[in-house]
Amino acid sequence: MRAAAGVGGLSASLDLTKRESFSYFHREQIRFSDTDMLGHVNNVAYAAMVESGRIAYLRSVVSRLYTVMARIEIDYRAELHYPAEIDVGCVILRVGRSSIVLGNGVFDGNVCGAAAVTTLVLIDKETRRSTPIPDEARAQLEALVQG
Amino acid sequence: MRAAAGVGGLSASLDLTKRESFSYFHREQIRFSDTDMLGHVNNVAYAAMVESGRIAYLRSVVSRLYTVMARIEIDYRAELHYPAEIDVGCVILRVGRSSIVLGNGVFDGNVCGAAAVTTLVLIDKETRRSTPIPDEARAQLEALVQG
Amino acid sequence: MRAAAGVGGLSASLDLTKRESFSYFHREQIRFSDTDMLGHVNNVAYAAMVESGRIAYLRSVVSRLYTVMARIEIDYRAELHYPAEIDVGCVILRVGRSSIVLGNGVFDGNVCGAAAVTTLVLIDKETRRSTPIPDEARAQLEALVQG
Amino acid sequence: MRAAAGVGGLSASLDLTKRESFSYFHREQIRFSDTDMLGHVNNVAYAAMVESGRIAYLRSVVSRLYTVMARIEIDYRAELHYPAEIDVGCVILRVGRSSIVLGNGVFDGNVCGAAAVTTLVLIDKETRRSTPIPDEARAQLEALVQG
Repeated sequence: MRAAAGVGGLSASLDLTKRESFSYFHREQIRFSDTDMLGHVNNVAYAAMVESGRIAYLRSVVSRLYTVMARIEIDYRAELHYPAEIDVGCVILRVGRSSIVLGNGVFDGNVCGAAAVTTLVLIDKETRRSTPIPDEARAQLEALVQG
Repeated sequence: MRAAAGVGGLSASLDLTKRESFSYFHREQIRFSDTDMLGHVNNVAYAAMVESGRIAYLRSVVSRLYTVMARIEIDYRAELHYPAEIDVGCVILRVGRSSIVLGNGVFDGNVCGAAAVTTLVLIDKETRRSTPIPDEARAQLEALVQG
Repeated sequence: MRAAAGVGGLSASLDLTKRESFSYFHREQIRFSDTDMLGHVNNVAYAAMVESGRIAYLRSVVSRLYTVMARIEIDYRAELHYPAEIDVGCVILRVGRSSIVLGNGVFDGNVCGAAAVTTLVLIDKETRRSTPIPDEARAQLEALVQG
Repeated sequence: MRAAAGVGGLSASLDLTKRESFSYFHREQIRFSDTDMLGHVNNVAYAAMVESGRIAYLRSVVSRLYTVMARIEIDYRAELHYPAEIDVGCVILRVGRSSIVLGNGVFDGNVCGAAAVTTLVLIDKETRRSTPIPDEARAQLEALVQG
């Protein structure tokens, strides 16, 4: 999945299905309860692992932001199986006025199980409405944009 | 599972594997993601459905209490499969100083998938330590005790 | 979310955020364990409910097909909260050689929590590679296409 | 939780709330979706982590057995929070004719979040009825019994 495929006007050319597109990885364990009756890891579990990686990454690079998810796109590339240790690659693709677009790749070794593009929106905790990203956080995030 | 089996000194004789032991039922849907690679509903999903039934039941009989789980025992009786609508029978077995013991039966029609005994403890939201159940709530709960 | 927004060349104009775009609904219960520390339903639970609705719908209209998920896009529109009964609207948007594109809307009453577009691919159970949809199933599915 | 508390006639004296009671640990990551609206790790997620640890442990010590869960008891000892890396201690407490009783402790560093005792039953894959543990597996398991 080219990041560009996922988000309209983005001119990115980062290939989220390749390990070398990422410099940050979050480690996850496939759980037995992640499997489903088809014998493989259920697609919902991919989303849970991507989410955990994404949040861990954001927390490592910027002071806590109160965001909600606006959109996610996941391209499933390969079946995953229990047991396995998974690396969730994380990268920032774009920073908007109140939004952050992240790219993720889910890897079992060098096999890409999925690529994902997520749009988060910063909201006001009380009003639950979108609010601009503070300047300091914006600067930190923009310095990390790739693709 | 006799409720007595689960909780030490309890003299209860309620059979949690029988529908007729319950007058309150909470409806749940088996989800595809509840299944695991053995082809049946994963045991963890039973706990999720029991929890949702238990909380819905408590909220229907008493003003909101801030509780955490102290203990759960689940006897698995039959495999469940997707898709199915499940009834979670709910009953109060005992009310302690700061604890509430609930019994649950998980039914697919007349088949009992599991019986569970849960001990909840009322805690203070700030200190996170156990605190006595207020008199009014206690009276409401004790009026419902069975077994 | 216009279905068209989600899937490249699709000329659909179905608005997946409106109840009236659907004639089939699958009922789901929000579970307590679907919530997260932000106090609302975790985004991953939306995917689990969409999946369960999608599979129930497909099974109701066509003989069993062995499919895996190739892609999902979810637009999150409103926060959902525990407890609630949710209706997952289901519609078929397109049928390809070996793929089926479905549209879903997640509703709490008339509030749309999310819209989703999913691409499933029929695979051979042994080789795990894509395989054409049998003619009879294709005819059944194509008769249902909307958008 | 003394293992003895959980299983009737067991003379065990192993304290499952202490790290030193275990020589095998399985590493798990708390996921964001493991949290619930109370702000802590939902009790169901403990069960998922215990299950994954238990299965990984069994697979490491004995050839594959087809088991289903007959019973679980979990004593919740401390709230866990996201993010954290968790160690699930695993030990075999008893081996019956067709059953295996395992003990687990869930640790965030030296803090015990929960202790669990699980009874698995070996079943025949076709009949779904309990079947005796083969002699070789029994010998391997019995050699590991503690408590």
